[in-house]
Amino acid sequence: MEAKTMTYCTVGDYLLLRLVQVGIKHIFGVPGDYNMEFLDFIIKQENLKWIGNCNELNAAYAADGYARINGIAALVTTFGVGELSAINGIAGAYAEYVPVVAITGSPATKKQSSGAPLHHTVGTGDFTIFAQMFEKVTVAQAYLTAENATAEIDRVLGVCLLKKQPVYISLPMDVATTEVAAPAGEFMPPVFESDSATLDEAVDVSVTMLEKAEKPVILADIGVDRYRLHNELRELLAATGYPYATMSMGKALLEETHPQYIGIYNGAVSNDYVRRRIEEADCVLSIGTYFTDFNTGKFSAQLEPSRTIEVHGEYLKIKRALYNQVAMRDFLPALSKKLQHREAISLDIKPAKDNSKASYQVNADAPIKQERFWQRLTNFFKEDDIVVADIGVAYFGSLLVNFPKGTTFVGQLLWASIGYSLGAVLGCAIASPQRRSILFIGDGSFQMTAQELSTLLRYDLKPIIFLINNDGYTIERDIHGEKMPYNDIQRWKYHQLPEVFGNNSWSAKVSSESELETALQTASENRDKLIFIEVVMGKMENPENLLKLLQQ
Amino acid sequence: MEAKTMTYCTVGDYLLLRLVQVGIKHIFGVPGDYNMEFLDFIIKQENLKWIGNCNELNAAYAADGYARINGIAALVTTFGVGELSAINGIAGAYAEYVPVVAITGSPATKKQSSGAPLHHTVGTGDFTIFAQMFEKVTVAQAYLTAENATAEIDRVLGVCLLKKQPVYISLPMDVATTEVAAPAGEFMPPVFESDSATLDEAVDVSVTMLEKAEKPVILADIGVDRYRLHNELRELLAATGYPYATMSMGKALLEETHPQYIGIYNGAVSNDYVRRRIEEADCVLSIGTYFTDFNTGKFSAQLEPSRTIEVHGEYLKIKRALYNQVAMRDFLPALSKKLQHREAISLDIKPAKDNSKASYQVNADAPIKQERFWQRLTNFFKEDDIVVADIGVAYFGSLLVNFPKGTTFVGQLLWASIGYSLGAVLGCAIASPQRRSILFIGDGSFQMTAQELSTLLRYDLKPIIFLINNDGYTIERDIHGEKMPYNDIQRWKYHQLPEVFGNNSWSAKVSSESELETALQTASENRDKLIFIEVVMGKMENPENLLKLLQQ
Repeated sequence: MEAKTMTYCTVGDYLLLRLVQVGIKHIFGVPGDYNMEFLDFIIKQENLKWIGNCNELNAAYAADGYARINGIAALVTTFGVGELSAINGIAGAYAEYVPVVAITGSPATKKQSSGAPLHHTVGTGDFTIFAQMFEKVTVAQAYLTAENATAEIDRVLGVCLLKKQPVYISLPMDVATTEVAAPAGEFMPPVFESDSATLDEAVDVSVTMLEKAEKPVILADIGVDRYRLHNELRELLAATGYPYATMSMGKALLEETHPQYIGIYNGAVSNDYVRRRIEEADCVLSIGTYFTDFNTGKFSAQLEPSRTIEVHGEYLKIKRALYNQVAMRDFLPALSKKLQHREAISLDIKPAKDNSKASYQVNADAPIKQERFWQRLTNFFKEDDIVVADIGVAYFGSLLVNFPKGTTFVGQLLWASIGYSLGAVLGCAIASPQRRSILFIGDGSFQMTAQELSTLLRYDLKPIIFLINNDGYTIERDIHGEKMPYNDIQRWKYHQLPEVFGNNSWSAKVSSESELETALQTASENRDKLIFIEVVMGKMENPENLLKLLQQ
Repeated sequence: MEAKTMTYCTVGDYLLLRLVQVGIKHIFGVPGDYNMEFLDFIIKQENLKWIGNCNELNAAYAADGYARINGIAALVTTFGVGELSAINGIAGAYAEYVPVVAITGSPATKKQSSGAPLHHTVGTGDFTIFAQMFEKVTVAQAYLTAENATAEIDRVLGVCLLKKQPVYISLPMDVATTEVAAPAGEFMPPVFESDSATLDEAVDVSVTMLEKAEKPVILADIGVDRYRLHNELRELLAATGYPYATMSMGKALLEETHPQYIGIYNGAVSNDYVRRRIEEADCVLSIGTYFTDFNTGKFSAQLEPSRTIEVHGEYLKIKRALYNQVAMRDFLPALSKKLQHREAISLDIKPAKDNSKASYQVNADAPIKQERFWQRLTNFFKEDDIVVADIGVAYFGSLLVNFPKGTTFVGQLLWASIGYSLGAVLGCAIASPQRRSILFIGDGSFQMTAQELSTLLRYDLKPIIFLINNDGYTIERDIHGEKMPYNDIQRWKYHQLPEVFGNNSWSAKVSSESELETALQTASENRDKLIFIEVVMGKMENPENLLKLLQQ
């Protein structure tokens, strides 16, 4: 066993030190009497800032958004009531491969072992039931004691970084304040190592298959983003000249202005060219793809294993053969080295960028239609924007726009929890306040998590928020019960909310194209305020791709 | 096997019929694409009304409040995202013995068995993980199929009614719309039968013990309320003449004007007389009591088993002897028949009602203090009010007031989830719109669930809401970190919210006793509107009993 330099600190400070070392600068959450001693340590940690949320679900959504920009996030809740309120948000991070460290402050060890009917328990003396729930939606769990704390903290943070999914830490308050001997120095995150023989064989087989193909194509998705291999993908594109599409969740993975980028593949919902280019390719190099009903055109996607190389973070599949213990991180550069570059002319590439920036003339008194709205917005986006879209018309509408270079797209397509995006945009704006964060959210979704608008104001953030007021749950009306009262919601004066929640905002309600134009102008010019634009649309105004998906 | 008359109906309609038969008139929830076919049946059921909430946690809180007034409630959420958002609310109902039927609309059976990565799943093909979470906080679960549906529905509704705790029903949408043969006629709820020999023996032993005691006393709590045995308790009081106290959760179980009612027992936090009268009694007849840290003065309560008869719904304990299979419903009337009536003079009874209605003179420009506020409110309450209080200063302040006859008190002392009360007051007002529902909630709690104010307006309800604005989490400041920034919250213009969320409200912000006076006057006179009064108080304004509890 190698000698380690040890230091002495409290478990709470050690956990925070490790969070700082893995790149966390802000912690989201809500105080409660089982976590406040730990919050004291956060306030004292000069490299961390506490972000207090209105409730725990919103805090979990914010942590998710933060992690998507920052690479990893942390959430602190209190025992029972707090953690259960957050669990939907953690389940979403689990589903969509977002690394969030979910820390629950729990009653002191002695209190737990006494089995006493403390508040925030169900009164049975069982203090484990909430943790058992979290075991279903986190990839590792730690129940900290003074004895195991440093090792367990390092273990679960390592798993979080490796697997890109949430981990759960139960931190009793007496443990948080106990001083322990802790390893000094930086955190050494575990590294997933490829088996070199398997890697070599997989590369050889893949290169042979791709070189033989006449029309190879790359289909990239969120796996590339989660493993932060954007550059490796970009190099592969440069090395090969192959065209590439993304799946819907992987939208804007690389710049959509890239000359080899052909658009989004979504089975039968794709445009004809993209669908043909993917489904008729003689070899599809699929990188980091995740399939759901909503990104495969309800499973209409045709991706035959016999012509597919499917690359994941830690394994790959070539046709039907599974190659375990191969890292995407190693595989992509190896391909880049070995594959021949091909001329564009041989590859049938229609760059998506050629379709963007359709001409748009304001039709002054016209009501705002989905198609025209997104056409207009195309020219509103700027380089390096963060675009956050709630599932529903906002998400599918956003898919229609080709974003400028450097744009990051954030949304939940698999977990698809409405209201997520308002919390998420808070996390994004905290993670990267120098970029513009632009949110699109429907009225029904907004009502789910509306109070978090106040947290954006509280921390003096300046997102641009488009609230699409279509008078109810439009995506639900599309699916079932168009005129049923359960799809109606209360009509709020949405644009008045920022003023109730705080200062330093500008808001407007727009119903016509000319009103929209004025509001966009103001939004562009006023970067020192939170901008809130309530965009009134018809109840059944839908982006075409959403209708097409639902008709599958 | 006896012949049963059968009828034919869809599983969805059968479930609704049974809900109607057990007394449910309203169903709370949020639509989602895995529950809408079932919602169609709700809309068509003329004896049921759908109440659409802003989000699922608030819907669960509303169902809990409704069940406390109505006896039982139902909640409908969608799979995954919806049910997980609600789980904190269901856990609270489980902890505090509130019968809520939690129905999750789930994907069609074939889709589930295919293991497809549908939206609202975590993508692993496992459709059971959310149900497994609910197994931790519900007392029975049913996974409906066409074959088991009628039997399983009847079984879990029976358990819900018997155990007074939530049950979970997973209803795949293809099952909801399938027609099945179903038993006709009324639902016959299962009845818990006492073992008559055990009952007789327990009654004899208890009567002997009580008759021998010089200073017997009754300590009643929420068990009496949950089993709806208010009249049986009232008869026992009449038959014996014994004084009685309640625990905090059992506040206003019977009229607090009752001449035998002496007040609330909360261990060391009780007033001296009540504490002495309970702790020095030579026999305490404890009925339906549940103990938590917050209602035992942090376990300072002195309730020696050797002088205690502890009566529960389905069992009792006399000293240290356990008598299983004895129903509270049978035991209380048996005691009433056998016990001698005693004269008040022999029993050291100081009725709590003699302490109420302290004189109060408005001190016009004085800021509003906790003690004075509750003194003033004492004269504001009327018979048959429903008083809902959020945990924190609101709950403990409410404990200071002796309510008029017929008042129902609703709050969460064990589960203690802040924000609960705003959802709960919606449920109460829906259950009993003819009564005044009066809510007390702090600003931090209100921010948790604020959007549900709009649902009160949507359904044209007229509660009176007192928002205690003490600029942050006061109860948390009491416990730890008085001046720490994590106990601060964003300052909203709370009194402007009702106007943003809908019409037909009157609101005011009051900071002095005279302003409070004017607002109370308006509230009393305007019963045709929702009333919202923002009451500004100092950051560390606390009811004395809360401070006393926290100092234990």
